[in-house]
Amino acid sequence: MKIESVDFFYLSMPEVTTEGDGSQDALLVRVASGSHVGWGECEASPLVSIAAFVCPMSHGACRPVGDSVLGQTLDGPADIARIAVQVEYDSMDLLQAPHTWSGVEIALWDLLGKSRGEPVWKLLGYRQQFRKIPYASQLFGDTPEETLKLAVRAKSNRFAAVKFGWGPIGKTSLKTDVDHFVAAREGLGADGILLIDVGQIFGENLEAAVARLPGLEQVGARWLEEPFHTAALEAYGALASRSHKVKLAGGEGAHNFHMAQHLIDYGGVGYVQVDCGRIGGIGVAKKVADYAVAKGVTFVNHTFTSHLALSASLQPYAGLRTHEICEFPFAPKPLAREFTANHLDRDSDGFVSLPDGPGLGIAIDSEAARKYLVEVEIKVKGKTLFASSDQF
Amino acid sequence: MKIESVDFFYLSMPEVTTEGDGSQDALLVRVASGSHVGWGECEASPLVSIAAFVCPMSHGACRPVGDSVLGQTLDGPADIARIAVQVEYDSMDLLQAPHTWSGVEIALWDLLGKSRGEPVWKLLGYRQQFRKIPYASQLFGDTPEETLKLAVRAKSNRFAAVKFGWGPIGKTSLKTDVDHFVAAREGLGADGILLIDVGQIFGENLEAAVARLPGLEQVGARWLEEPFHTAALEAYGALASRSHKVKLAGGEGAHNFHMAQHLIDYGGVGYVQVDCGRIGGIGVAKKVADYAVAKGVTFVNHTFTSHLALSASLQPYAGLRTHEICEFPFAPKPLAREFTANHLDRDSDGFVSLPDGPGLGIAIDSEAARKYLVEVEIKVKGKTLFASSDQF
Repeated sequence: MKIESVDFFYLSMPEVTTEGDGSQDALLVRVASGSHVGWGECEASPLVSIAAFVCPMSHGACRPVGDSVLGQTLDGPADIARIAVQVEYDSMDLLQAPHTWSGVEIALWDLLGKSRGEPVWKLLGYRQQFRKIPYASQLFGDTPEETLKLAVRAKSNRFAAVKFGWGPIGKTSLKTDVDHFVAAREGLGADGILLIDVGQIFGENLEAAVARLPGLEQVGARWLEEPFHTAALEAYGALASRSHKVKLAGGEGAHNFHMAQHLIDYGGVGYVQVDCGRIGGIGVAKKVADYAVAKGVTFVNHTFTSHLALSASLQPYAGLRTHEICEFPFAPKPLAREFTANHLDRDSDGFVSLPDGPGLGIAIDSEAARKYLVEVEIKVKGKTLFASSDQF
Repeated sequence: MKIESVDFFYLSMPEVTTEGDGSQDALLVRVASGSHVGWGECEASPLVSIAAFVCPMSHGACRPVGDSVLGQTLDGPADIARIAVQVEYDSMDLLQAPHTWSGVEIALWDLLGKSRGEPVWKLLGYRQQFRKIPYASQLFGDTPEETLKLAVRAKSNRFAAVKFGWGPIGKTSLKTDVDHFVAAREGLGADGILLIDVGQIFGENLEAAVARLPGLEQVGARWLEEPFHTAALEAYGALASRSHKVKLAGGEGAHNFHMAQHLIDYGGVGYVQVDCGRIGGIGVAKKVADYAVAKGVTFVNHTFTSHLALSASLQPYAGLRTHEICEFPFAPKPLAREFTANHLDRDSDGFVSLPDGPGLGIAIDSEAARKYLVEVEIKVKGKTLFASSDQF
């Protein structure tokens, strides 16, 4: 096959707010070859990621992502890996490139799977998939009372695991934070898996994070996620060595294999969280999963958006039986739910499995997506480099 | 002062080629407050960096850079540091943000210096500046004979130090590479400082890099620059431990403090190279310089473009007497030379100093810049988010 076209569709809620909810917009990517199409999704800033695909070349190591993709041969996984290397080298100085490429790469796996009639996880070498325990991923309430209600709601929705993130944590006092942790545990009950995500709020402030450890231990939190800036490896490593029961989790900000590797090797995380829509796609994520297995670290997906992104993010570790937790967008914005025609809904036991259908097994609902389409035009030197289309 | 406006000017040569010459385009940034203006420059992909300033917000941690800058108070260096923290946090998921912010940050220092009548290096806390030994930074020739000629030309231009980079190295055979190294030394003479830059050509292939060490030692190369991907810290560290005479240099790809720090701590580089137009500007670069001093590593600027970028890149280590080498754009494209009205030309001894004038001490030649201006328009939802202006 030749990669004949790559199209981007920027979707957005009518109003986007400052809450930490990444499902307020989406950048869909469609690749086509002959009668086959594949779909992928880039994480974050649709306009900037589109620009990185179509921008004029700055020099040999700062070429647009499109130059490395369009017209390429795609006959197997090795071709995707080869194109990935070319993107990394030829767009070395284009910082946004990994985010753009991630969505394209995911779409290429979908395309390849569809052309072969196989699910992506089989193309990755897994013979069998193991269902995952989804955790309801949601933001903390503004008050502990609200957090309690949110935990109760998640439990009543049959979630065995819940993650609370962002919101007020780290912004007022230690006591308030602990009150939120306690409220979360209370609402979830003694048995539930409780995960805490503080969204890099402590920057590099080790002691601020250490101060939260007793509260987290008290409520039996399984992990503390992103206490620091993604690259603050020393702070991660120091906190890991001072935390006896609560493991660290991080990695969603990784935009290449090395960054995830360093969080494992230098940062001492117990859970490495990979967003396929940022790290360079499914192939790189699988490489991280292999590395995590070798290092005794648990792989977890990072997904806060659609079920297309969810399917992509589960493929890299679908065959790892003991890596059993997965992030599950619990309360996404309507667009993220609506633009896929099918969903990875939980089975009667509350577990999530990947579709057995070819590729990612997720169909796009064009009519629903069209409602959220954002019109974009980028012109350089009087020439239109990108104009949005509603031809899904 | 309030930051009242931030304007971007995308300049480009009429034709941009795939050679590894970063001076083929430029993104100028102008900030204004009252009667003062400051100028800065972002490194790489002007269109994408502009998009990251004006894009619609995706969510609270993926806001356009402009949201953190416009309207802010600027009364001293602490304000620049404060805005930097806000950009880093509020644009956490916007990968391009550090490149965009870098040019803005540089312009803020220029603005601040002009409003106070002081050069930036004084604002950074240095009492005195020390002139630097500029190295002529150029690409290898296509053949060893051509490399020889280029070295002779640099020497006849009174350069005591020369860096050859990219080109054919690592692409054919070890013998060809060594022939180029030998030709460079021959042309430069026994006394010249010879620096070799291989532009990440070995990816993570440690042995390929190790194989070049004897040739580099033979010609007395002072450093081997960027043998690997910026983030391949293990490969850097392993190579550093196997290289007895030739030190490693790297860091130009760093887009935050941590990346430079890790190249020092884990990668074992002897020279840390910082591009102010990528790492987040002058403030972060100064932090890296301080860290380098503490760790016994030598700081070097990375600059392949204009003398505006050159001035910005020298400020962070202007006061460090023993960090004496600086990259000097030797043969940039005409636009990079022409759009500044003055230049950091070498003194009669062949050294380079910073201007004593306020700010960065570099004036923009509007007429010259206008010749290279690229027309850009970005529209989202029918609204123009960016339209280029020729009002320099």
